[in-house]
Amino acid sequence: MLRAISFAAVLLCCLPSSGLCSETARVSDATQACLSCHETVHPGVVGDWRSSRHSAVTPAEGMAVKTPGRMVSSETAPDDLVNVVVGCAECHTQNPGAHKDSFEHNGYDVHVVVTPEDCATCHKTERAQYADNVMAHAYGNLENNTLYGMLVKSVNGTLSYDKGKLAQSEPNAETNADSCLYCHGTIIEVGAPVARDTVMGEMEFPVLTGWPNQGAGRMNPDGSMGACTPCHPRHAFSMAVARKPYACKECHNGPDVPAYKVYSASKHGNIYASKFTDWNFKATPWKIGKDFTAPTCAACHVSLLAGADGEIVAERTHKMTDRLSWRIFGPVYAHPQPKLPNTDIITNKNGLQLPTTLDGQPATEFLISSEEMQIRRKTMQAACLSCHATDWVDGYWKRLDNTVAETNATVLAATRIMQAAWNKGLAQGPDKGSPFDEYIENIWTEAWLFSAHSVRYSSAMGGGGDYGAFADGRIFLNMQIRQMKDWFDLHAK
Amino acid sequence: MLRAISFAAVLLCCLPSSGLCSETARVSDATQACLSCHETVHPGVVGDWRSSRHSAVTPAEGMAVKTPGRMVSSETAPDDLVNVVVGCAECHTQNPGAHKDSFEHNGYDVHVVVTPEDCATCHKTERAQYADNVMAHAYGNLENNTLYGMLVKSVNGTLSYDKGKLAQSEPNAETNADSCLYCHGTIIEVGAPVARDTVMGEMEFPVLTGWPNQGAGRMNPDGSMGACTPCHPRHAFSMAVARKPYACKECHNGPDVPAYKVYSASKHGNIYASKFTDWNFKATPWKIGKDFTAPTCAACHVSLLAGADGEIVAERTHKMTDRLSWRIFGPVYAHPQPKLPNTDIITNKNGLQLPTTLDGQPATEFLISSEEMQIRRKTMQAACLSCHATDWVDGYWKRLDNTVAETNATVLAATRIMQAAWNKGLAQGPDKGSPFDEYIENIWTEAWLFSAHSVRYSSAMGGGGDYGAFADGRIFLNMQIRQMKDWFDLHAK
Amino acid sequence: MLRAISFAAVLLCCLPSSGLCSETARVSDATQACLSCHETVHPGVVGDWRSSRHSAVTPAEGMAVKTPGRMVSSETAPDDLVNVVVGCAECHTQNPGAHKDSFEHNGYDVHVVVTPEDCATCHKTERAQYADNVMAHAYGNLENNTLYGMLVKSVNGTLSYDKGKLAQSEPNAETNADSCLYCHGTIIEVGAPVARDTVMGEMEFPVLTGWPNQGAGRMNPDGSMGACTPCHPRHAFSMAVARKPYACKECHNGPDVPAYKVYSASKHGNIYASKFTDWNFKATPWKIGKDFTAPTCAACHVSLLAGADGEIVAERTHKMTDRLSWRIFGPVYAHPQPKLPNTDIITNKNGLQLPTTLDGQPATEFLISSEEMQIRRKTMQAACLSCHATDWVDGYWKRLDNTVAETNATVLAATRIMQAAWNKGLAQGPDKGSPFDEYIENIWTEAWLFSAHSVRYSSAMGGGGDYGAFADGRIFLNMQIRQMKDWFDLHAK
Repeated sequence: MLRAISFAAVLLCCLPSSGLCSETARVSDATQACLSCHETVHPGVVGDWRSSRHSAVTPAEGMAVKTPGRMVSSETAPDDLVNVVVGCAECHTQNPGAHKDSFEHNGYDVHVVVTPEDCATCHKTERAQYADNVMAHAYGNLENNTLYGMLVKSVNGTLSYDKGKLAQSEPNAETNADSCLYCHGTIIEVGAPVARDTVMGEMEFPVLTGWPNQGAGRMNPDGSMGACTPCHPRHAFSMAVARKPYACKECHNGPDVPAYKVYSASKHGNIYASKFTDWNFKATPWKIGKDFTAPTCAACHVSLLAGADGEIVAERTHKMTDRLSWRIFGPVYAHPQPKLPNTDIITNKNGLQLPTTLDGQPATEFLISSEEMQIRRKTMQAACLSCHATDWVDGYWKRLDNTVAETNATVLAATRIMQAAWNKGLAQGPDKGSPFDEYIENIWTEAWLFSAHSVRYSSAMGGGGDYGAFADGRIFLNMQIRQMKDWFDLHAK
Repeated sequence: MLRAISFAAVLLCCLPSSGLCSETARVSDATQACLSCHETVHPGVVGDWRSSRHSAVTPAEGMAVKTPGRMVSSETAPDDLVNVVVGCAECHTQNPGAHKDSFEHNGYDVHVVVTPEDCATCHKTERAQYADNVMAHAYGNLENNTLYGMLVKSVNGTLSYDKGKLAQSEPNAETNADSCLYCHGTIIEVGAPVARDTVMGEMEFPVLTGWPNQGAGRMNPDGSMGACTPCHPRHAFSMAVARKPYACKECHNGPDVPAYKVYSASKHGNIYASKFTDWNFKATPWKIGKDFTAPTCAACHVSLLAGADGEIVAERTHKMTDRLSWRIFGPVYAHPQPKLPNTDIITNKNGLQLPTTLDGQPATEFLISSEEMQIRRKTMQAACLSCHATDWVDGYWKRLDNTVAETNATVLAATRIMQAAWNKGLAQGPDKGSPFDEYIENIWTEAWLFSAHSVRYSSAMGGGGDYGAFADGRIFLNMQIRQMKDWFDLHAK
Repeated sequence: MLRAISFAAVLLCCLPSSGLCSETARVSDATQACLSCHETVHPGVVGDWRSSRHSAVTPAEGMAVKTPGRMVSSETAPDDLVNVVVGCAECHTQNPGAHKDSFEHNGYDVHVVVTPEDCATCHKTERAQYADNVMAHAYGNLENNTLYGMLVKSVNGTLSYDKGKLAQSEPNAETNADSCLYCHGTIIEVGAPVARDTVMGEMEFPVLTGWPNQGAGRMNPDGSMGACTPCHPRHAFSMAVARKPYACKECHNGPDVPAYKVYSASKHGNIYASKFTDWNFKATPWKIGKDFTAPTCAACHVSLLAGADGEIVAERTHKMTDRLSWRIFGPVYAHPQPKLPNTDIITNKNGLQLPTTLDGQPATEFLISSEEMQIRRKTMQAACLSCHATDWVDGYWKRLDNTVAETNATVLAATRIMQAAWNKGLAQGPDKGSPFDEYIENIWTEAWLFSAHSVRYSSAMGGGGDYGAFADGRIFLNMQIRQMKDWFDLHAK
């Protein structure tokens, strides 16, 4: 506890505004060289960094912390980094040999894209967890799945209409980057350098394709997968920002994964929105009832939580599935979480790269066991039980299990109508092409991808409300199935 | 005024952070016993309570306040409660005889579900108002209405498809609790007790069905109806939280009652979101122009409002319809507010439990008179007139009346097409079954339940904007009617 | 710089809370007369004003500022205004001759509707810029365009169904005011005065039609166009409020112009929502990296921006298109910005008042040149480049250009199906009536007005995410076109 206090004291004395210590002396010469121009050229970046912990604390100070809240998980750091604050050069000049985007810039080998491998120097544990997180694999999980590729084409390809026929082109790279890959991540490739006029005269810079991108599963020029910036945006890289729900909203707001919408209409979201100005988002461990009184996304899924007396309630994790038993989104049915983060290896017994068959049978060998589901459920419930009694938590979980079963049953009805249409030749299914590129297939997709997901997110995130009923919920799920039936009967006549 | 000051002084000296008085001395022995375990076991609950007024003020102190802002409306409180702060035991051990969920717990008769009847000990007036509030009757208003039961089934029942037929099961209790009853409230019933291992060894606890639930019309184990926690979430039970719009959002955000969405896109919502960090949400009376400069939901519908000089502008009410003349949502037409909160007693002249006929004729004997409408309008306008001139307010109300008339006329067009389809046997209407379980009926439902409501909420809440035009508004209302016409013509061929 | 400091000192000493100067002495006698009643009658208005800069600073003090951040752009102000703070009378009694809504009120000629012409007394430059802003012309741009008039009727007209026919009335004035004109602005006309009982006895007041309204293109009783209050709401008229995104949300949230929705799910919006409580919204120039670290709507489109050292990055403008090259919304294709703010003068080569033909050919003579597009792009990019490197910004813009091209191509597919339906007589197109009043036409409208716009806003505002893919984005654009094809094939049989 003394050490925690002394860490707090260090932090306090080093905050730029405290005036108690000389920050400048702890900034490396290389970073000082960066700042000498970029403070003027990129004031937004530098200002954001100056507001950050990185600009005020050295790795050595971070490693001196021995309390559970310690944020620097590595035990050692390179000699040239350990006693300077984490500035421009500390990140942008690391591991230059690995970075294909590294270029000579005023005497330094600088790279554009700072990657999880760079962050791992100080945050080794978090990087390892994130490497095992399904999000880090988001690019390959989409691009290496033939069936998902058809969905991507259906969404991103440009349509044309000629002589009574509708045709669709393969989506181009810029469109994919602007659409699915905004969240899933692009491949960043390094092209030939170009010369640009700058305030320092003409200089050469690499030109990157797939850039800009901050997708969770970005394929980086140093060969690593993933990015830390989707949740810890540049250049403050703040834990507090990642703990607020807007970080998650960026990719979890649409009808396929309406987590933020459901949260913001939930009891938890209500309390958060009413009280967040009184909470402490910087403390770690994050103390339930003291630092905050209702969970954000991070509290349930990521953060190191403690009771008011400091007892640890949940360990910090950057593998988001550690506390998840069900995978509440399809395709096309909810199912136990996959065992491995690279989901493109999953094959159902009909040979499709799906975690269930189209009839709903799970590809069991690729999914976690019911014992493992139980363990993860208990991990999550530890957080719930800090505010709710056992009977409350049990009742809630029973309701979620019921929702998974009922929505899966309803999605089966939708899929059977879809299969009837495929069988009758009213649409061309997976045996003959894409199951996603005709109108009736799009209605089917809405049913399982949007409506069923809304219902399950609503159920999973503390209960019901409009998103389980009227707002994108059960009324739409059932209506879409009735629309499919109506369409089928009309076209089958 | 002196007393108000002295109340403020009491509050100040008793705030935990002030260090000026000994809170512990005022906590009852019973609550102290609860805290001795639950502070560790449920830090979230206890932390939230510690931040509350309840933890800092005794009923005696609350009753000593004689200003209009007084929050404890009861004139007396039981001897054992009056001089201790309102802690765990004060609520969870009240009226044990009435509580079927009461159980022996470490020497105390504790109940799980604290109800409005418990809160009434100190907040008698608010409880009486709420008992007369349509929200307290939300369970029965839904469950005891045959026609609404068909809508509930249509939304919550699970669909199956077999041999070209679509069938729908009765919704199960968990699904209903997760959907409609999340807001309307469940029935909470008490089952056989179970034994659970706890930090104190094995203990017995009751098992509740319909739990968890915080619906506004919850049917409680002590026989009471309603809940205070939908708006004053546990365990801070804060007035400030209820005054912010997120409290209402939980149940008034979906397309059927898009109050929050409309508010957050309105001028009032704009000012709120920009300035709320500068406002005082704790003051009562809530002084217009001093504590806040644009209304939240509570300001117009609930709160005790005063001018800057303390003159009362609107009395506090927990009967939400006190300031409402129109009921701007159907089914299926907007109409004058019902006279009584239990709307399941309403029967239109065709024998359906609806406030209007399907042709739009109001069931007048169940609805308030035009004189009463005028009185309620004036009550609401008192708040409007604190910021707006008479001409502004009149112009706005004229527009709302016009919107009610025009949307009712448009919903009539939708209903006439629906009736034509029923008459022609293209769908089975209320004479032959459910009017809500076929595709064309769902489109009709979207028209009056979603689109017409959006338009009216937009008009009622300060005017128009996207929710009256493009965002779920008039364009969709008209489009759905054209879709019905298109469908009818195609199927009637 | 000294003057800036002295301006800050003046401001500080004049803040009501500072107690350092006598505000009352600087309030004009006329305003004092207003306040003597209205402080009681309209506490909300007066309280809001008391919190404002207007209540604390005189025009003379505003004009003494010589730094770039100066907010009073006029060089002179009338003698009777220059040394008093800007109170009720200063605005509501200006230019009485021009104001048809001026009326005698307790010895003063007071007008109801304060207009941009009134504000121009002190804010001459902003008023001139706004007069040249497309928003100031929003009323005429809608009402004077025959084709748009058909869209307005399609949305706002009341439908009726009789003998198998659907008919639509012309929308009435109140409905239009409640719908499209809420944002576009009404015409405000002055009717005969009425007498009303007041606390001062009976008094006469003018009755206005088209009132209330705060639309951006309001047609005012003094003959001016526009309003300042949509973004600077009464009676604080705050720059800080206009800098927050909620000001824009009021009219830019719906599916046709989903700017706020996209922003709030973007990286910029994430950082804003997480950090706005730490930012300074009152400083001007608005210093990037110091006052704020991620842009709001105003930062990119309106505000005077500076680097941390005060160097100007972007000039303040109230002509919103100064930094815009593409007009990313149709009808019906994205195209270069119009040259002039009065877009109703635009005619395409088929004689329709549209900036492109229905086949997508731009009406070039009415649109800015590619050189001008380049200039505006550079103006906008100056802000981007304060946080992002050139390669990032270039990559982002390349993606936007691609999105414009691809969505235009897809809208062409939709339009070709629409034209096929018109040609085949399955619907009545612009040659025979309204192209907006049949079901299939509504689907076409959804495609170009809602889905294509979502995709483009998502692309334009920092990149993708759900609004470019699933949330109202590409999946819906393509689905609507497939629906049109499905409909066409069924009806053409």
